[in-house]
Amino acid sequence: MNADWLGEIHFDADGLVPVVAQDAASGRVLMMAWADREALAETARTKRAVYWSRSRSRLWRKGEESGHTQQVSEIRLDCDGDVVLYAVEQTGGIACHTGRASCFYRRLDGDRWEAVDPVLQDPELIYRK
Amino acid sequence: MNADWLGEIHFDADGLVPVVAQDAASGRVLMMAWADREALAETARTKRAVYWSRSRSRLWRKGEESGHTQQVSEIRLDCDGDVVLYAVEQTGGIACHTGRASCFYRRLDGDRWEAVDPVLQDPELIYRK
Repeated sequence: MNADWLGEIHFDADGLVPVVAQDAASGRVLMMAWADREALAETARTKRAVYWSRSRSRLWRKGEESGHTQQVSEIRLDCDGDVVLYAVEQTGGIACHTGRASCFYRRLDGDRWEAVDPVLQDPELIYRK
Repeated sequence: MNADWLGEIHFDADGLVPVVAQDAASGRVLMMAWADREALAETARTKRAVYWSRSRSRLWRKGEESGHTQQVSEIRLDCDGDVVLYAVEQTGGIACHTGRASCFYRRLDGDRWEAVDPVLQDPELIYRK
């Protein structure tokens, strides 16, 4: 694979770049995670969203445990070349490990965060294998 | 101001958190930048998007030079408490310093990035004072 496009991305000191995942149909911002070169290359090749898990220090093929994979229809890069945007179709309609559609389910209401989006599936059921 | 809500945010080692700005009307992801406690507090108080400019090491009141301010209708926090989402009304319909609606104007097409969104205003006109 010609990796010129990867060379235009400005990775941080850890070799990572932030990736925003947006639902291609609803426009909902689902999550933000990180990717290294390998994660981006695999995503571009397979059209399945891959990230780098900083907590586990390994490639994270989104949905590998939950089944909530993301089919990637578009990959975009920002003006500074240091943020990537995946447009995705979210399997199961659930991106968040809490069982919600989006990880951004808390909204600032005055001086407190309120969970304003419903849990669509019990996380214990999502991760029970 | 009661700052309990700021205490729930997990800032990185530099005291920053990534902030995604999304157009509240179109759903378009406009940009990703960073914020410190002060930037978030001011944003919540004034409803005008404030970030922390890492290149200039100072608060960045979006639009202070370009006039392209962002009116913030909603602030959200993700499940891990380490990413913030601003829903904004983008003044002038231009978020990017290149004169485009969104900073994410490059799309991966095969093995190259293609600029697929139009320049709405010449940057030299935006920044000429």
